[in-house]
Amino acid sequence: MAEKSALDILWVIVAGGLVFMMQAGFLCLETGLTRAKNSINVAMKNITDIGVAVLLYWMFGFALMFGWSQGGWYGSTQFFTRVGGEDQWLSAFFFFQAMFVATAATIVSGAVAERLKFGAYIVVTAIISGIIYPFFGHWTWGGFYEGPPGWLASWGFVDFAGSTVVHSVGGWVALAVLLVIGPRTGRFPAQGPPRPIPGWNLPIAMLGTLLLAFGWIGFNGGSTLAMNDQVAGIVANTILAACAGLVVALFVGWILEGTPKVDLPINGCLAGLVAITANCHAVDAASAVMIGGIGALVMLAGGKLLLYFRIDDAVGAIPVHMAAGIWGTIAVALFGNLEILGTGLDREAQLYIQIMGVLVCGLLSFSVSYVLILLLNHIYPLRVTLEEELAGLDVSEHQVEEVPI
Amino acid sequence: MAEKSALDILWVIVAGGLVFMMQAGFLCLETGLTRAKNSINVAMKNITDIGVAVLLYWMFGFALMFGWSQGGWYGSTQFFTRVGGEDQWLSAFFFFQAMFVATAATIVSGAVAERLKFGAYIVVTAIISGIIYPFFGHWTWGGFYEGPPGWLASWGFVDFAGSTVVHSVGGWVALAVLLVIGPRTGRFPAQGPPRPIPGWNLPIAMLGTLLLAFGWIGFNGGSTLAMNDQVAGIVANTILAACAGLVVALFVGWILEGTPKVDLPINGCLAGLVAITANCHAVDAASAVMIGGIGALVMLAGGKLLLYFRIDDAVGAIPVHMAAGIWGTIAVALFGNLEILGTGLDREAQLYIQIMGVLVCGLLSFSVSYVLILLLNHIYPLRVTLEEELAGLDVSEHQVEEVPI
Amino acid sequence: MAEKSALDILWVIVAGGLVFMMQAGFLCLETGLTRAKNSINVAMKNITDIGVAVLLYWMFGFALMFGWSQGGWYGSTQFFTRVGGEDQWLSAFFFFQAMFVATAATIVSGAVAERLKFGAYIVVTAIISGIIYPFFGHWTWGGFYEGPPGWLASWGFVDFAGSTVVHSVGGWVALAVLLVIGPRTGRFPAQGPPRPIPGWNLPIAMLGTLLLAFGWIGFNGGSTLAMNDQVAGIVANTILAACAGLVVALFVGWILEGTPKVDLPINGCLAGLVAITANCHAVDAASAVMIGGIGALVMLAGGKLLLYFRIDDAVGAIPVHMAAGIWGTIAVALFGNLEILGTGLDREAQLYIQIMGVLVCGLLSFSVSYVLILLLNHIYPLRVTLEEELAGLDVSEHQVEEVPI
Repeated sequence: MAEKSALDILWVIVAGGLVFMMQAGFLCLETGLTRAKNSINVAMKNITDIGVAVLLYWMFGFALMFGWSQGGWYGSTQFFTRVGGEDQWLSAFFFFQAMFVATAATIVSGAVAERLKFGAYIVVTAIISGIIYPFFGHWTWGGFYEGPPGWLASWGFVDFAGSTVVHSVGGWVALAVLLVIGPRTGRFPAQGPPRPIPGWNLPIAMLGTLLLAFGWIGFNGGSTLAMNDQVAGIVANTILAACAGLVVALFVGWILEGTPKVDLPINGCLAGLVAITANCHAVDAASAVMIGGIGALVMLAGGKLLLYFRIDDAVGAIPVHMAAGIWGTIAVALFGNLEILGTGLDREAQLYIQIMGVLVCGLLSFSVSYVLILLLNHIYPLRVTLEEELAGLDVSEHQVEEVPI
Repeated sequence: MAEKSALDILWVIVAGGLVFMMQAGFLCLETGLTRAKNSINVAMKNITDIGVAVLLYWMFGFALMFGWSQGGWYGSTQFFTRVGGEDQWLSAFFFFQAMFVATAATIVSGAVAERLKFGAYIVVTAIISGIIYPFFGHWTWGGFYEGPPGWLASWGFVDFAGSTVVHSVGGWVALAVLLVIGPRTGRFPAQGPPRPIPGWNLPIAMLGTLLLAFGWIGFNGGSTLAMNDQVAGIVANTILAACAGLVVALFVGWILEGTPKVDLPINGCLAGLVAITANCHAVDAASAVMIGGIGALVMLAGGKLLLYFRIDDAVGAIPVHMAAGIWGTIAVALFGNLEILGTGLDREAQLYIQIMGVLVCGLLSFSVSYVLILLLNHIYPLRVTLEEELAGLDVSEHQVEEVPI
Repeated sequence: MAEKSALDILWVIVAGGLVFMMQAGFLCLETGLTRAKNSINVAMKNITDIGVAVLLYWMFGFALMFGWSQGGWYGSTQFFTRVGGEDQWLSAFFFFQAMFVATAATIVSGAVAERLKFGAYIVVTAIISGIIYPFFGHWTWGGFYEGPPGWLASWGFVDFAGSTVVHSVGGWVALAVLLVIGPRTGRFPAQGPPRPIPGWNLPIAMLGTLLLAFGWIGFNGGSTLAMNDQVAGIVANTILAACAGLVVALFVGWILEGTPKVDLPINGCLAGLVAITANCHAVDAASAVMIGGIGALVMLAGGKLLLYFRIDDAVGAIPVHMAAGIWGTIAVALFGNLEILGTGLDREAQLYIQIMGVLVCGLLSFSVSYVLILLLNHIYPLRVTLEEELAGLDVSEHQVEEVPI
């Protein structure tokens, strides 16, 4: 690890703070896109997951991910990470990475909203933040603090700020949960087209989108782990991709559906951001615009695919985080400057390894979470009852009272 | 352009991030100050304009504004700005300036709320961000990246962070649109006083005000374009002017109207911020308090004037951004330290050139946008129909469905 | 005062900006936890107090607190603080400290919500920000800008970022006001248990919690007043304590009450943050987790105690800010590294002086505010009438009109 200056540490802390703000962004986005009767429950899930995820990460997740590597498979030092002590860089790096695990965890909450029990959600958070994210993270980012790199990285897999490591992981786990618990009641009538279930507070959802984009400046910009000469370009690329995703989704969706629906700029912007995340350090502005714009198209297609398979993602998290995340990871090989990637591979070989990384992520994240959640569901049914669902999870899960006048 | 250090670049990026947060501030402010039936439409406009504005700015707006100057009138290099490459300062500077054009564009959305078509708003965004803002910006700030200064700057016009360049431009364009599309139905009854149309979610509007003030730390503080010895004083002045504006508007309005109305601290704070924007680098604390407080009075007077002329600004954007912006620009000459201004003019000459800058801005911004919008309105009526207006733009423009229970 | 580098000043400005965001956090928290009919009034109080507090602080509060010390009791220079001039550090330091006084002031608004007149609240803000906070602040933090230290500090009292100086002060003043104005009508029926009065917009309250935690990164991290080698550890400790508080309050409350109530993660997170504030620079990660977790338990106990005494704190501000603040201040002596504390005291002596500081704060803050508010209440009744309370303060205090369709 190169020596870190005070300036580097300042930047990583500020960037970590920005990533923290993404928690607020997800809370607004997801509470706004769900119905009033479930809006408190989804916000509760959002605020709770950061507490659970960060504590588990401190206890062992960080150790598995960034401890000294055991053969490139998992780390084995840094349990109960000794932050707050003399090693400033450890504290700053832990803080930044703890915000990342919180992001991966919170992606799930929106997709599975309006039917998953609060207690079950906490278990899902523990699975993703304590197991899946640290392991896959080690394979890709292991060695960033100490020791040799993870096995995927040593093969040449590049995922700069986590299109796959963070976003696709969240998306795959969300998909596994959705396959176990099924769609919301009434979403897919026996006959006729899917019935849209619009959110109660769309302006707040749009506020959430802007908070997420704000946080992404730190998410991508801070992934340099230093205030180096890549930061400014990364930030500029990030904002261009976000804008391209927003505009492409808005206009393409407008043409296809005949109306500028509210979810278009929201999920377009986010898809652009997810797509640029893996490659923002190694592409130029024109590529960033293309990657963001194509990310929006991939998101739109992903949404159609989910509907076709009658999978009910309440906020579109899987199209945004998994579909656009896959695209962004592949775009590393298509658009990236090979010299900056620095893997020594040619473009074709890089493409293969990028695809392999995507598949490995899907295999690990989906299969582990699917099996665990399926098992768990037999012991402790994860879905609320129909009566609870109809009453709304705010009342059934949290006994929220009517507000007296 | 002086060499930029990593510290300078870090500050400009952080400041740009803060300015980005102003988008979230405007969204909250404007959605909260309008009626529920239009609240989604106004938020959609807010989130869409940054996408459109930044992409156009990247394609040609930045080039017109900061490219190498053609006789002080417009820039002609930097089309499809090559950010993301080796020139770090270009990336950081572009990012910061792209957040500024988004601010100028978004000012309009609130003023014209509750009646302007979504498609028409996108055209207005393109006019301001692609044409008016870059040209006037070049005249004042041209040469900040490369080449000789714009013509207004070379005459000695000073507008440090954009009371005129950003805020008045937005205000003038809003005025032009309002004169074309007219007031909301029911706002000015044939007989009797204007009928107030309060917003649906005033706490969110106040949240928006605080987010705007937060962002303004970067808006003014980052306009140094370096982490130099002016930054701290600018930030302190900015917050003092905001507080003075808030307190003056609240108490003066309370005395005049007999009630501490909700719009008073909101628009007072914002007027104080707009007023200090042009001069925050060249005044002391006592002047900052006076400039902010007088800005609030100018805003109150501007609001009365609009009512007198039966111009229906839905959120008070013109009094805040244009009226207080004019005041702040003139205050440069009245309160500014001439040595810091560095124009070589005496106070009287500086006053004349400040007034000239204000007039040139009004002439350009208002007349160009008025003519374009008037023409456009003949081809494609910009205002929704009366039925659509009564139904609300959320439904008529975006087909937002009722939320099922 | 050590020489400050540009990096130090940048960090203090950024940290001050983060603390400013806590205003937005308090606004969201408090407006969300109150009823719709009072939600605008409480937001108005939140946005107004920063204006009043910062202007008074600029006029004389900062001078009393950080001016040259008169025998350790109060400062006597820096009236109408000359920020915006050549002394950059003065500007940065003033800005940071002005955000702190605004925080102390705004803590009160939530506790006393739904019954205190708007005008009375402004007077309370003036008392806390113009008198109580500057005096107690001088005793603990005096000399941080110039001159000798305050008397409590010279005895060895340590309150790093203000568990007592900021948070307990706010809590004590809130308690004094509550004892004078009494509970909300209907909160404590003559017979039977207290009647809960849930808030109208709990997702917004949770957003507020996240905004507060975001701001706390600057609140604690910036209290180094320099970008030194303590910052990273402080930030990591802060986030761990917040997460521990959140998780402990959630699970303990869940066990005790049988339901994961919404206020548990909100106030648990905040209690963890308040508790770590005094000691974040001098403890390790495991201690931070314990301090935060115990802070949550103290908060839960404090809430029960208030109910027992039938004191009606509308948002739980006193358990969070006063109870957890007392705990955090005592934890300095229990968990702090004595070498880092640097007072030359042994652990037992440090414990005594910490307890003394807590008592002195309570004595000053409570007694001065109680006497002043009691007197004031005789001249100008601070509580709205029963009719006004039933109608809601939005209408009675601000004449907020019905929103027309």
